Amino acid sequence: MRQGRQTWLFKNKPVIIAGAAVGGPHEAKGPLAADFDLLHDDLWLEKDSFEKAQTKMLEEACDIALGKAGLSKQDIRFFLGGDLLNQIISTSFAARTLAVPFLGLYGACSTSMESLALGALIVDSRAGDHVLCGTVSHNAAVEKQYRYPTEYGAQKPPTAQWTVTGAGVALLSADGVGPRVTAATIGRIMDLGVSDPYNMGSAMAPAAVDTITVHSRDLHISLDEYDLIATGDLGRVGHGIAGDLLSRQGIKFASGKFTDCGILIYGPDQPGVMAGGSGCGCSATVAFGHIMHRIRRGELKKVLLVATGALLSPLSYQQQESIPCIAHAVSIEYSH
Amino acid sequence: MRQGRQTWLFKNKPVIIAGAAVGGPHEAKGPLAADFDLLHDDLWLEKDSFEKAQTKMLEEACDIALGKAGLSKQDIRFFLGGDLLNQIISTSFAARTLAVPFLGLYGACSTSMESLALGALIVDSRAGDHVLCGTVSHNAAVEKQYRYPTEYGAQKPPTAQWTVTGAGVALLSADGVGPRVTAATIGRIMDLGVSDPYNMGSAMAPAAVDTITVHSRDLHISLDEYDLIATGDLGRVGHGIAGDLLSRQGIKFASGKFTDCGILIYGPDQPGVMAGGSGCGCSATVAFGHIMHRIRRGELKKVLLVATGALLSPLSYQQQESIPCIAHAVSIEYSH
Repeated sequence: MRQGRQTWLFKNKPVIIAGAAVGGPHEAKGPLAADFDLLHDDLWLEKDSFEKAQTKMLEEACDIALGKAGLSKQDIRFFLGGDLLNQIISTSFAARTLAVPFLGLYGACSTSMESLALGALIVDSRAGDHVLCGTVSHNAAVEKQYRYPTEYGAQKPPTAQWTVTGAGVALLSADGVGPRVTAATIGRIMDLGVSDPYNMGSAMAPAAVDTITVHSRDLHISLDEYDLIATGDLGRVGHGIAGDLLSRQGIKFASGKFTDCGILIYGPDQPGVMAGGSGCGCSATVAFGHIMHRIRRGELKKVLLVATGALLSPLSYQQQESIPCIAHAVSIEYSH
Repeated sequence: MRQGRQTWLFKNKPVIIAGAAVGGPHEAKGPLAADFDLLHDDLWLEKDSFEKAQTKMLEEACDIALGKAGLSKQDIRFFLGGDLLNQIISTSFAARTLAVPFLGLYGACSTSMESLALGALIVDSRAGDHVLCGTVSHNAAVEKQYRYPTEYGAQKPPTAQWTVTGAGVALLSADGVGPRVTAATIGRIMDLGVSDPYNMGSAMAPAAVDTITVHSRDLHISLDEYDLIATGDLGRVGHGIAGDLLSRQGIKFASGKFTDCGILIYGPDQPGVMAGGSGCGCSATVAFGHIMHRIRRGELKKVLLVATGALLSPLSYQQQESIPCIAHAVSIEYSH
């Protein structure tokens, strides 16, 4: 494998043979609704807890991806994923349902690209074919754990982001037709001292910028090669900061070529959204749904997905720690 | 890469060029005290929270391993690890200190072998040299989160296990002298319906048995090839059940060839230990300290380390879910 210091360049270019995105009621009212395979109008999904609803969404996304690829659970060699709940419990329960070898990951909202990068490494090195990569979040389950139960109606500042209710998965294979994973850059922790859990976009922006510039340097490529660079879930505030930091390094993008999954997923007038979407399900549903559809339609030939994660916990916040942040980038190409 | 369905057989056999184990006061009184590189007589490690003490132990273990190998942080290409605290916060903070590309993992107490398996895959496939793999737990931090603050003095049944205060890391390299990672078997979730967090050994035993038998079947080898098979932290109760389940399949071991890290780490008369040790730091310190020392001394030539994880959370327990369990196995060989 050729490589840069933090970057894997995949020789065999694993194929995303199928992607799937499942969403909730808020996502159904957003501009990307048509890119979801399944949308629920009820946050409970007929379960008796939001956590169980979260598990069900991930199971549904896995089933949909398998169905699209014409595969069954028995064809899956490994499942890689995680979520925001303590002990990534929703992913573990989904892994129990799948009953396939499981590697649990935790990278907060960067988990989507952490799972895709490691999954691609497994397929590329012939360590296993048919690898399922995915993640999930649920607004009410996650808000309850990190901040307040949504029923309290606690007020939030305009820098806050709305946790996406959604699950996104990608099914990787050594062979087949579809977008190919060509490279992955593994991020390092960036922590510039932001400690406000209502301003995670600002906290994560330097991590996204670091990973994007390292990716370009490791592979000796210009970022202009990409038709689209989409950060994970910086939201409007964080994405603006990331753009400013990049432009100070002389990196500027043509209009529409630098975007953010947290900005794309909701309309500017949707209630409560504030600075944009966040949560594990944000970059996962936008990347494996909307962006994958654009790639398959031929609108985008080469895309860099940069999922960002704020690695805080409620306890680390209470202990007045700042927020360690990370971003992992995966490059995807498709020639029709 | 040659492989079985769940098993990776490493062609280049990554070398564990250094291991390190850091422990606390209870570990210092145990029979493996001499195998720790550093033992603390104070649970606080001069920090103002048990969580920060946990972070410090992992940082110390990383520093010690780097020192043994004569490497600095800048030489490390990737750090893979996780812990039991919500959002694996101690590992993320240690990754911030290391300032190297980081892949966060969660497999409860199976994280030690999950990190070693994935780290070996990275080194074996030439995706990066000098990979640090590790995990940590802290008795007071973990008990507070999963059960009760230790200061309450809550009573436990005899099936309960004592969470190890300790950090263990292994430093992998493509070249060098030392024990070599020859294969890894990735486990699948086993859940036979046990829901008692004071009886996790019983819950995890079927996962250990499944992974051990799959390992043998995938590689077409007899388990007699191993001088030692050590399960992660089943403790006395769980290890007994695992032995029974294996013997029902006709698999029996010579005396002393089948053991458990949770049994080895504490003496039978140490107060509070009950059925044995547990926690992320249990298999990590015993494997990367004690067992690695025995391998280096030539007492063991081929060892299978089978770390087990109980993937419950306090919330999943409250919601009356049973405990999904997993085990990952890594085979280590050394010819002097």
